[in-house]
Amino acid sequence: MIIVKIGGNILDNPSRLHSFLVDFSKLQGPKLLVHGGGKIASAIGQRLGITPVMVEGRRVTDAETLELVTMVYGGLVNKQVVAQLQALGCNSIGMTGADANAIRATKRPLGAVDYGYAGDVAGNESINITALDAILQAGLTPVFAPLTHDGNGSMLNTNADTIASVLATALARKYRVTLMYCFEKKGVLADADDEGSVIHFIDQQKYKELKVAGIVSAGMVPKLDNAFAALNQGVSQVLIGEAEALLSIEETDTTFAGTTISLN
Amino acid sequence: MIIVKIGGNILDNPSRLHSFLVDFSKLQGPKLLVHGGGKIASAIGQRLGITPVMVEGRRVTDAETLELVTMVYGGLVNKQVVAQLQALGCNSIGMTGADANAIRATKRPLGAVDYGYAGDVAGNESINITALDAILQAGLTPVFAPLTHDGNGSMLNTNADTIASVLATALARKYRVTLMYCFEKKGVLADADDEGSVIHFIDQQKYKELKVAGIVSAGMVPKLDNAFAALNQGVSQVLIGEAEALLSIEETDTTFAGTTISLN
Repeated sequence: MIIVKIGGNILDNPSRLHSFLVDFSKLQGPKLLVHGGGKIASAIGQRLGITPVMVEGRRVTDAETLELVTMVYGGLVNKQVVAQLQALGCNSIGMTGADANAIRATKRPLGAVDYGYAGDVAGNESINITALDAILQAGLTPVFAPLTHDGNGSMLNTNADTIASVLATALARKYRVTLMYCFEKKGVLADADDEGSVIHFIDQQKYKELKVAGIVSAGMVPKLDNAFAALNQGVSQVLIGEAEALLSIEETDTTFAGTTISLN
Repeated sequence: MIIVKIGGNILDNPSRLHSFLVDFSKLQGPKLLVHGGGKIASAIGQRLGITPVMVEGRRVTDAETLELVTMVYGGLVNKQVVAQLQALGCNSIGMTGADANAIRATKRPLGAVDYGYAGDVAGNESINITALDAILQAGLTPVFAPLTHDGNGSMLNTNADTIASVLATALARKYRVTLMYCFEKKGVLADADDEGSVIHFIDQQKYKELKVAGIVSAGMVPKLDNAFAALNQGVSQVLIGEAEALLSIEETDTTFAGTTISLN
């Protein structure tokens, strides 16, 4: 199965989102989509008079921000994506981690910074694989908003990359999982300023060499570390590339246009 | 199975909502919840500067109102109910008519009044019973927001009573369905000013008599007509009463405290 994560760069652009959904709806076999937030939450927050609280470059989820993201990500963005997929013949079902108890998270503990209602996911035991599998077996395509719940009645705000990765590692127990992160660039670049310099394959050995040579940028290191963590937990391959490269995944005579990451 | 509809009078009162959800989570067997909107949508709409457009006492769903109700009903209200049910051990899954293509509706045709993005549901053929049944068989409890979709990529605003009734008649093909409308009064009253005057049983004959005698109020007639329409389409019984009477449904030694409506 394939799990695809899309972020704000696609969600904020209606025609690009539509093209992506056309491609996504064509993918064969079981599939799952995870979407991020996009600028719409900030725009609506501003109209509601909710001032974003930032600490060390991260947004703090206070009570009213939690209500905002629950509305906007779990309602507006999620249902617009689902309604569009239905029109394309893809029978999708919008979900958050609360729905079907799919992803239970823990409110981030109070440290130096109080991130508020931000949820961290501990591991596979937090994922209801049985319910997700029943939904997939019914031919439905889950569309996840970046929200979880704490099991005590509260929703939590959780990063979409994290949601994609925990779902991928949990479902890897049952499926052969490809995890694709749609990205604003064509893939991992050897030269950050040259979109033509995509590194098409990275395995553990190659990753070490790239780090030693100082070729992967500081911003890419956490993304690649996460990718290898997912691979080490059973995900078959992780792909990083532009949304427009989605359909090339399934063409056996073409190489994926972005970066394919695998253990070896 | 039992299908319960709750409206704004419960949703707007957090402690009453919580008590209701405690009772709902205790109901045995397959069950489904439909919720309305409540005052929160108007309150958020006001903060967003969305002016409600009313025509003949009915709210018109223009494009920005559709976004508002998709956010508030499909996101905020729906996920808060789902997260609370999860905390009570009821494995619920929040849905709109777009999710799993559960309920497809038609934008109300332009007549004397343009109701905008209001969706009417034609009949059983608009309900995806297969998908709903798979979700119920997986032990999940669907929680429906009062939203549908048109199959062409747009969400639509649909009355919660209608959603409850079309789901009940569709699921009656497969299940023995009790449909309960939670109501602000104890039931259908013989004397509108006396909560002690609940009429406990109404069948078709009795309904005729009540209408002839002028006992049922004008406001109750459409509700009772809808109830008999559902019964004529296979629903086993329709209950009208206070949310607090919910658990009395299952007690065999007690009569339901509200009004039980059946064909005979």
